[in-house]
Amino acid sequence: MTTLNFALIGSGSIGKMHAKHMARHIDGAKLAAIADVYADGARVCAEQHGVPRWTTDYRELLADPKIDAVMVCSATATHADIVEAAAKAGKHIFCEKPISKTLADADRALNAVQNAGVQFQIGFQRRFDPHFLRVKNAILNGEIGKPHIVHLVSRDPGPPGVGPIGLGGGIWFDMSIHDFDVARWLMACEPVSIYTQADVLIAPGLEQYGEVDVAVMVLRFENGAIVTIDNHCDSAYGYDQRVEVIGSAGAISIGNQANDNAILSNTHGLHAAKPLPYFLERYDAVYCHEVQVFVDCIRNNTPTPVGLRDARMSVIMALAARQSHAEKRVVMIG
Amino acid sequence: MTTLNFALIGSGSIGKMHAKHMARHIDGAKLAAIADVYADGARVCAEQHGVPRWTTDYRELLADPKIDAVMVCSATATHADIVEAAAKAGKHIFCEKPISKTLADADRALNAVQNAGVQFQIGFQRRFDPHFLRVKNAILNGEIGKPHIVHLVSRDPGPPGVGPIGLGGGIWFDMSIHDFDVARWLMACEPVSIYTQADVLIAPGLEQYGEVDVAVMVLRFENGAIVTIDNHCDSAYGYDQRVEVIGSAGAISIGNQANDNAILSNTHGLHAAKPLPYFLERYDAVYCHEVQVFVDCIRNNTPTPVGLRDARMSVIMALAARQSHAEKRVVMIG
Amino acid sequence: MTTLNFALIGSGSIGKMHAKHMARHIDGAKLAAIADVYADGARVCAEQHGVPRWTTDYRELLADPKIDAVMVCSATATHADIVEAAAKAGKHIFCEKPISKTLADADRALNAVQNAGVQFQIGFQRRFDPHFLRVKNAILNGEIGKPHIVHLVSRDPGPPGVGPIGLGGGIWFDMSIHDFDVARWLMACEPVSIYTQADVLIAPGLEQYGEVDVAVMVLRFENGAIVTIDNHCDSAYGYDQRVEVIGSAGAISIGNQANDNAILSNTHGLHAAKPLPYFLERYDAVYCHEVQVFVDCIRNNTPTPVGLRDARMSVIMALAARQSHAEKRVVMIG
Amino acid sequence: MTTLNFALIGSGSIGKMHAKHMARHIDGAKLAAIADVYADGARVCAEQHGVPRWTTDYRELLADPKIDAVMVCSATATHADIVEAAAKAGKHIFCEKPISKTLADADRALNAVQNAGVQFQIGFQRRFDPHFLRVKNAILNGEIGKPHIVHLVSRDPGPPGVGPIGLGGGIWFDMSIHDFDVARWLMACEPVSIYTQADVLIAPGLEQYGEVDVAVMVLRFENGAIVTIDNHCDSAYGYDQRVEVIGSAGAISIGNQANDNAILSNTHGLHAAKPLPYFLERYDAVYCHEVQVFVDCIRNNTPTPVGLRDARMSVIMALAARQSHAEKRVVMIG
Repeated sequence: MTTLNFALIGSGSIGKMHAKHMARHIDGAKLAAIADVYADGARVCAEQHGVPRWTTDYRELLADPKIDAVMVCSATATHADIVEAAAKAGKHIFCEKPISKTLADADRALNAVQNAGVQFQIGFQRRFDPHFLRVKNAILNGEIGKPHIVHLVSRDPGPPGVGPIGLGGGIWFDMSIHDFDVARWLMACEPVSIYTQADVLIAPGLEQYGEVDVAVMVLRFENGAIVTIDNHCDSAYGYDQRVEVIGSAGAISIGNQANDNAILSNTHGLHAAKPLPYFLERYDAVYCHEVQVFVDCIRNNTPTPVGLRDARMSVIMALAARQSHAEKRVVMIG
Repeated sequence: MTTLNFALIGSGSIGKMHAKHMARHIDGAKLAAIADVYADGARVCAEQHGVPRWTTDYRELLADPKIDAVMVCSATATHADIVEAAAKAGKHIFCEKPISKTLADADRALNAVQNAGVQFQIGFQRRFDPHFLRVKNAILNGEIGKPHIVHLVSRDPGPPGVGPIGLGGGIWFDMSIHDFDVARWLMACEPVSIYTQADVLIAPGLEQYGEVDVAVMVLRFENGAIVTIDNHCDSAYGYDQRVEVIGSAGAISIGNQANDNAILSNTHGLHAAKPLPYFLERYDAVYCHEVQVFVDCIRNNTPTPVGLRDARMSVIMALAARQSHAEKRVVMIG
Repeated sequence: MTTLNFALIGSGSIGKMHAKHMARHIDGAKLAAIADVYADGARVCAEQHGVPRWTTDYRELLADPKIDAVMVCSATATHADIVEAAAKAGKHIFCEKPISKTLADADRALNAVQNAGVQFQIGFQRRFDPHFLRVKNAILNGEIGKPHIVHLVSRDPGPPGVGPIGLGGGIWFDMSIHDFDVARWLMACEPVSIYTQADVLIAPGLEQYGEVDVAVMVLRFENGAIVTIDNHCDSAYGYDQRVEVIGSAGAISIGNQANDNAILSNTHGLHAAKPLPYFLERYDAVYCHEVQVFVDCIRNNTPTPVGLRDARMSVIMALAARQSHAEKRVVMIG
Repeated sequence: MTTLNFALIGSGSIGKMHAKHMARHIDGAKLAAIADVYADGARVCAEQHGVPRWTTDYRELLADPKIDAVMVCSATATHADIVEAAAKAGKHIFCEKPISKTLADADRALNAVQNAGVQFQIGFQRRFDPHFLRVKNAILNGEIGKPHIVHLVSRDPGPPGVGPIGLGGGIWFDMSIHDFDVARWLMACEPVSIYTQADVLIAPGLEQYGEVDVAVMVLRFENGAIVTIDNHCDSAYGYDQRVEVIGSAGAISIGNQANDNAILSNTHGLHAAKPLPYFLERYDAVYCHEVQVFVDCIRNNTPTPVGLRDARMSVIMALAARQSHAEKRVVMIG
């Protein structure tokens, strides 16, 4: 089978990480070109990972018949347009989350993908993490029985971003969106309602941009399960990513990983290291695995495990979470 | 200082436990009489712990001027009447939670206490537990900064009780009420809103009694903190009592205790013991400490640490939680 | 059955603790008298726990026919004489460890006990601790198969005592002796050899008293198992008591207990409390259980679980450990 | 700087792992050739990792002036000869442990390296593991003060190998040798004595080959520290690699890593996953880091961190451990 030619669109922090993985770890695909509106960014990334071509205009790459697939790692506001254009150009698409911050844009892009019949995967990497997978498999295997309550914690090492980032509500589209997807994936069904308690507790001034920095959501799912999501934008002890599910036959929980598991005991007590700093460290191997699965799905012509519906539902949930916050009431979904 | 004479009213499981503690551990007080509507219960408990007097009518004991204080450990539905009568008889009162399942009855009883000027303590023992105290002190000491999010977990080893127990909504008056009090105590302020997601997920048929067996609440407090409470009536792995608080400078969490901390490693993995079975085992020393504090407050004429307002607010919160469930909406408090 | 009358001989820290337990927790026995060479010590302890009689001369108590049993909690150097005298007086005997620091004295005392036919228990309380019991039961139940390697850790919170304490080698008679007994108990057989590596690493000057402050022993047992013992006299993080056993089918290990199990997470990492300070806190309930078992054995006329042979073998092992250190060679036992 | 050409000698399990790493992860070097006495092994490994040349005769590769360095991953018995030949051919040498099972052969090989002035690194990968490094750094930083006692645990998932493997005593040259090196590295000084307690407890029949399957060693180091090493060849719960060091100011310990950190709680207790299966999984990234350091040392002409003396001392310690076992006595080192 021939090696697939990938184009990377967007060479920011997550784009660079994918470039590194494609250069070293991914089988069956190679990075043939990089596009970034910042020429230096594209050039340096290309040089660093031996990528033969770079450009500031991703349309050039979409027009190149030798490019088989694209990795959309640009700013969120550009995702929908690029996905639509890539689909119309017949490229397979891996898109970082979220697909969009509006449902209209999301649907326009996702419809283009569906019409083109190309492969599409949205970047919910936690589904590929061995810890999260253990939870999923515990549920699938019946180890905890029927799920009753789920707690999801996602806390960023902060400080929270400040500024006019699109339509506001960044926390729901950037942070919570992972938890929304994890909840749907674990429950294997859809949410029916959501209630949000959120506020600016950390960075006064965020309000003017329609942002919050602390948010707790409680959702009800079709299977009866109650899900809470805990998001915090400035965790003093660093990046915190946890899950707990209790069911009729037991419970399963996962915690964080650190650089080392040493315990230092001294006159002040027992001490251990903080979690790995942030998503690039915490999920490095997971991002790699995620992309390998995408490449394999293209090569084997099998459906990607995180597709159109997942991209769309996560946007719907983020919108509902934001609406619940704005209207201070429970919002029904679907 | 003379030793106080206590009367125990109600010699069920928690009453027996208090009797044992007064017989062995409590300084400055002794159990002088036991009342229970079941004569055999009162008699056996009295014999077991060397208590010289027992009766089926607690009013006899209230009429006895040698009795200084009462421990109200009878059925919930009788608490308000007994507290009112005891107050009018001038006895100091320790009352197991909840004071009542209606605010009217609670207020009638609590007003009687206030008018009588006797000491009153409500049985929220978690405030005296070294683990919960560590969380409280971490907040007081500023170790975690300003509190932002609190998670409280209380899960019973089940199975959930079934039957016509008063006005329904037992979960909020029996289980959640501890969490309501812990939340107020930790936050050192009052709740402003509550939203409940709850259902019968474990024991079909509970609905007819107005009961649920799984409940998740999200509350907002005056200090801005968001609190979730997770209650489950049939935890497969036993009694689960946990707290986590994240604030601006860090987080603190406490877990369960087991009979032993052994880790068995074998071909199937690593294995540890379940938590201590239930409240009598988990909080045995804590119940003792709680009563000692009550006795000391009487003898030193200092205010009890968990008093009238705490008894009343926990009832208000339970009523609001039940209302939110019934009306499927956010309920404002106070 | 009548209540047994106990006499406490020695009201130092461990004697006081036993007095407290007998006054409150022990069923079937009561403390009728206290002897201590320091009159004030005896008097204060008696007053505190409602004991009707005290004296500076334990022989008075041995001469009193109303005394059924004695708790020997005096200085180590007096144990053998007191045990011998008590046995000859027909009293049942609970003796704190060690029975003696010489085998001749130990044998003299133990022979007197055997000849008198009284009950005898030596104070190896770890056998009654739920954590250590879990390890014992795992072995008995075959959960780890045939034991191959055992690690025992006993570290004191220090600083190590300095001074002319008897014959020297205090570490082996005061600290290691517990580990020697635990090893014999867990292995259910006797040691065949011991090798000691020990030195003064903490408190220069101890050498002149024949003492060491750090000692590691490796023993071979009759069942083939290899046992290491790790003793340290000045653990910066406090009292450390651990066991690990690996066998043909798995391993089991136990750790320490703290006042609370809270985990504080902040910018410096994760932090937990140190172990409980020292033996009085760590083993409080265990000492109580140990004495209750002794009382029950007397009342039921059943053999005590830690008797003459255990007292004697632990002395033999301490002597062998000291000899191995002195002669820098492996010493065979038995 | 030009890319170094490496030759891999020996394409067994650890050789294959190094080949994979050189193909994907190592910067500044590439695998130019593979030699293995089994032609198919060499060929398949070369094909799998895009290595252009393979042979059954490593001497061909030593004769090739384009080869800069060799990775010696062949059977232990061949290490000394290959290292000697490679040194004489002027190649830089990375050699898997042990350099030899005799001191004469080790010295012959190491002298050749010294005379040739080539770079040499021995494969003690634990020194590059973040967990072990944390322990090393805690000591270097003075976090635990002056080291007093060290416990090292290395247990293989078994079953132990059976058969005529060289001179016998495989456990000391294959397993313990890592612990010997870790002890020297952590203590930053040399051992002065060793005592071994070892036996065949698992696989009857090993004795005839001079092997044991359980071994515990206690060593004394020049800095006064006492070190125990616990080796077991058939750990039921899998690969176990731990360190604990207690010093004058505290203690530090490290544990194992598992595929996931999930805790499953059910009616039987709490359950977690076993450690990662074996060294290839446990140390995968560490092996990679180790080789990168070696490559960087060649390119920067700086001394390798684990060199001739380390290779030699570990052999001396293994010989002393075996001798102590054979002669049932303490053996002095150096």
